[in-house]
Amino acid sequence: MLPAPSINAWDVKRIEDAFSDYLPLSAGIEPHLRDTLKHVLRNPGNLVRPQIVFQMAMAYGMPDVHAIELAIALEYFHTASLLFDDLPCMDHAIERRGTRCAHLAYGEAGAILAALALINRAYALTWQASSDCTQDRQSSGLAYAEKHLGVDGLLNGQSLDLQYSKLPHDRQTTERIAVGKTVSLIRLAFVLPALLGGASASELRLLDRIAMYWGLSYQILDDLKDVLQGVAETGKTGSRDISLDRPNIAIAIGVPNSVARLTRLIHLGDRSLRRLLKLAPSVFFLGKLRSDLQEEADRITERSFEMVIRAQA
Amino acid sequence: MLPAPSINAWDVKRIEDAFSDYLPLSAGIEPHLRDTLKHVLRNPGNLVRPQIVFQMAMAYGMPDVHAIELAIALEYFHTASLLFDDLPCMDHAIERRGTRCAHLAYGEAGAILAALALINRAYALTWQASSDCTQDRQSSGLAYAEKHLGVDGLLNGQSLDLQYSKLPHDRQTTERIAVGKTVSLIRLAFVLPALLGGASASELRLLDRIAMYWGLSYQILDDLKDVLQGVAETGKTGSRDISLDRPNIAIAIGVPNSVARLTRLIHLGDRSLRRLLKLAPSVFFLGKLRSDLQEEADRITERSFEMVIRAQA
Repeated sequence: MLPAPSINAWDVKRIEDAFSDYLPLSAGIEPHLRDTLKHVLRNPGNLVRPQIVFQMAMAYGMPDVHAIELAIALEYFHTASLLFDDLPCMDHAIERRGTRCAHLAYGEAGAILAALALINRAYALTWQASSDCTQDRQSSGLAYAEKHLGVDGLLNGQSLDLQYSKLPHDRQTTERIAVGKTVSLIRLAFVLPALLGGASASELRLLDRIAMYWGLSYQILDDLKDVLQGVAETGKTGSRDISLDRPNIAIAIGVPNSVARLTRLIHLGDRSLRRLLKLAPSVFFLGKLRSDLQEEADRITERSFEMVIRAQA
Repeated sequence: MLPAPSINAWDVKRIEDAFSDYLPLSAGIEPHLRDTLKHVLRNPGNLVRPQIVFQMAMAYGMPDVHAIELAIALEYFHTASLLFDDLPCMDHAIERRGTRCAHLAYGEAGAILAALALINRAYALTWQASSDCTQDRQSSGLAYAEKHLGVDGLLNGQSLDLQYSKLPHDRQTTERIAVGKTVSLIRLAFVLPALLGGASASELRLLDRIAMYWGLSYQILDDLKDVLQGVAETGKTGSRDISLDRPNIAIAIGVPNSVARLTRLIHLGDRSLRRLLKLAPSVFFLGKLRSDLQEEADRITERSFEMVIRAQA
């Protein structure tokens, strides 16, 4: 879960509205597909990710219309990945964004067609968002999107995730999965708006690294939360990941090593962020994301120490 | 099933090679995903569709590199639609292109991820194919693709198809499904290369109509074949569509009415084709497609008359 960036209430509202409006449902659409899509478009989640994309695009001077198009495009890709991820043949989830999963409410075929509708729209919006750029910038941007959405990015992470039970349960594997599944979309959120807005090669390299360090950090936080779940109350871990044999770095290398890895990643992120802010002061809003990340890391570290103390008592 | 257009052997080979090569599988890809994609890329089917796209693109003066990119892009979209269509939650198919369906050989998750890989690559190739066009032409082309692949095209047809058991079993419904599911991809194959190649508005309108008339004709041929299946031998229909309650115009309005509808559609197609050939003599290769269609229609009509005679005997 990404921490919320600061953004004004009016822009938050525009992004909220765009999420539900940018996939228009014309009169001729088959009613079951329409209902499935309405269900998905009415449950946008916290929309933190498109807020980051929007701020990044504005910081790099993209016109606000294109900034919103790109923000919604990346959020549609993300939402579609969740619809697929939740299917019985993948994660077999029950609830998503506080409501019943689309495949349970509307059937698997409905969920798949809705996901494909989001993907179709997302490519179109990505292209629209880049349509006023120079051809060089546009083609680098679209190639970057293709790479991180495809078999070298998101799809590879998902496939590794599904094969996890047969793979070594170590840091390398859990991080490889996280790089594909979690980091790919964070990279797109950080790098693509900057790239289309005209960031320099050094800025793009730094943004890509920050996305990597922070993306892996978010994953460790999620993994630690899963493992520490219920420990405070019962002294025993209520880990869903253990019971389902899901990739989790805190299970693979233990809680203390995961906390150390998290601290190291945040430190590396800080170094890149400091260098980036010298080159591009306009992305100062990343400082807020960084301090939210640190705060959450501190909270989790505290909980993990409590666990150690409890275990020694 | 589309009839094969005439095209030289060298270009056929280039298209065959491109089908397997245009989705490069780098060293880092998770092995199960790699195997699934190899299975799909090694079973391309007859590749008639990309041959039509290639010929159309060349007829309208697109550079041959872009003609092949577009041909493969549309074939990847088509192949992905078959992978989804074959899933247990959709058509529950067993065999495809002479081999076991991907979801049976590699699991549903594998088939879905492979389909998404094809789709990701297909959008990228569509964009590449249009990257040297004027911005106007490019944006019309990409909008045309989005419309016919999305909730107003292919996805709508698939959704109607899945709901068919609850819909009136009449000509209007079966044709609405065919327009979404079959005609959308034929429209893309006929119109998109012409559009990107610079066809005039009248030519595009005529191509769109021909795709509609012929696409519906192909569907009627398939439906008639399904119903006439086995009749010659046993005198009883061995229709798979009847037993599965699948949309089939010959079941909905009867064989003689379907034959009449087919004759009418081919006649309408002829009128548009004559007008088109006056404007664009370079698309003469469509004449071959047209006569193949007529030949198949004659064959099926003959078989349907035999059935009537047999029933009266």
